Amino acid sequence: MTEALHDWAQSLDTLLDQTWKRLARGVADRRAPARHPTLATVDTAGLPQARTVVLRSADPDTAQLRVYTDRYADKVEHVQTHPHAAIHVWDNVAHLQLRLSAAVKVITGDTLQPVWTQLSDHARSCYGFHPASGDVITEGLAYEKLPDLASFAVLELTVEHMDILHLGYQHRRAHYSRDDDWAGQWVVP
Amino acid sequence: MTEALHDWAQSLDTLLDQTWKRLARGVADRRAPARHPTLATVDTAGLPQARTVVLRSADPDTAQLRVYTDRYADKVEHVQTHPHAAIHVWDNVAHLQLRLSAAVKVITGDTLQPVWTQLSDHARSCYGFHPASGDVITEGLAYEKLPDLASFAVLELTVEHMDILHLGYQHRRAHYSRDDDWAGQWVVP
Repeated sequence: MTEALHDWAQSLDTLLDQTWKRLARGVADRRAPARHPTLATVDTAGLPQARTVVLRSADPDTAQLRVYTDRYADKVEHVQTHPHAAIHVWDNVAHLQLRLSAAVKVITGDTLQPVWTQLSDHARSCYGFHPASGDVITEGLAYEKLPDLASFAVLELTVEHMDILHLGYQHRRAHYSRDDDWAGQWVVP
Repeated sequence: MTEALHDWAQSLDTLLDQTWKRLARGVADRRAPARHPTLATVDTAGLPQARTVVLRSADPDTAQLRVYTDRYADKVEHVQTHPHAAIHVWDNVAHLQLRLSAAVKVITGDTLQPVWTQLSDHARSCYGFHPASGDVITEGLAYEKLPDLASFAVLELTVEHMDILHLGYQHRRAHYSRDDDWAGQWVVP
């Protein structure tokens, strides 16, 4: 059943193509599974950390993704120390688990003015808190939102490896790397 | 609206209680959001990795969780080198993001015989592949399933910290630690 519906899982090329289609859907559609990946980082103590992010762009030509963040969020400090992240998506529609490894660059400052200008007021209100994100406060609502370009950052994720698992009647799993220009190889699930 | 429905988000005690309720729901209900957390680890190269797991137990008294795995899965090698994991759940029903940090112990061998015996045939078929999980193969289905207790492992996760975010009309975020017996403190979202 699933096998017939998901013909694209049967070859390395079409599985990779489907992966980028699912990521693109996440950027375009607020309700698509890839809209909200989990981003895993390594913190300053060397421990893993994970949180939900919103996928803002996914470019198959460069194999780069972008997410936005408050620049005082812990993930920014993490990737400034360990500039790599894992991006994880479980797409229940396509029966696909996407596991991406990426190098991360933090972008801040006036270069982001064009992005900032295009954000809605609601979107901007996610970037800029007083006290800063993560600071201890005495009551749950003892903070203010002070939207500010200086509190906004973009994480540019340059994908290096992808581990893609399709759960069908029989599972298929493939590993792709930038090193071999994404030719890919099958691996045991 | 959400505020009224989610009164439990307004105090540290009730927010913690709700967190354990959502985790327990994940263990009991295949369709609950906490059924399928993302588990993040640090690999042997020091890079973050993340994948979906199935939550098998969640004990609020000891603050321990359990997940099952093929012992040849990469996550086992990771936690043998870096014995810590992050567990991430986005619970869209409760509007809660759960971020747990845990020490990890890998359990294998005959001590797992009682657990193995209770698994269904279908469940057992997830543990034991030839070639081993992650090995390169020439075709997507060039592997056999050979269910075997020797290929089964349990990860015992002893939670050390919890970062809980409630997305309401106004967001609330709390940090809890084993060190202060889970008393908790509010932090800026």
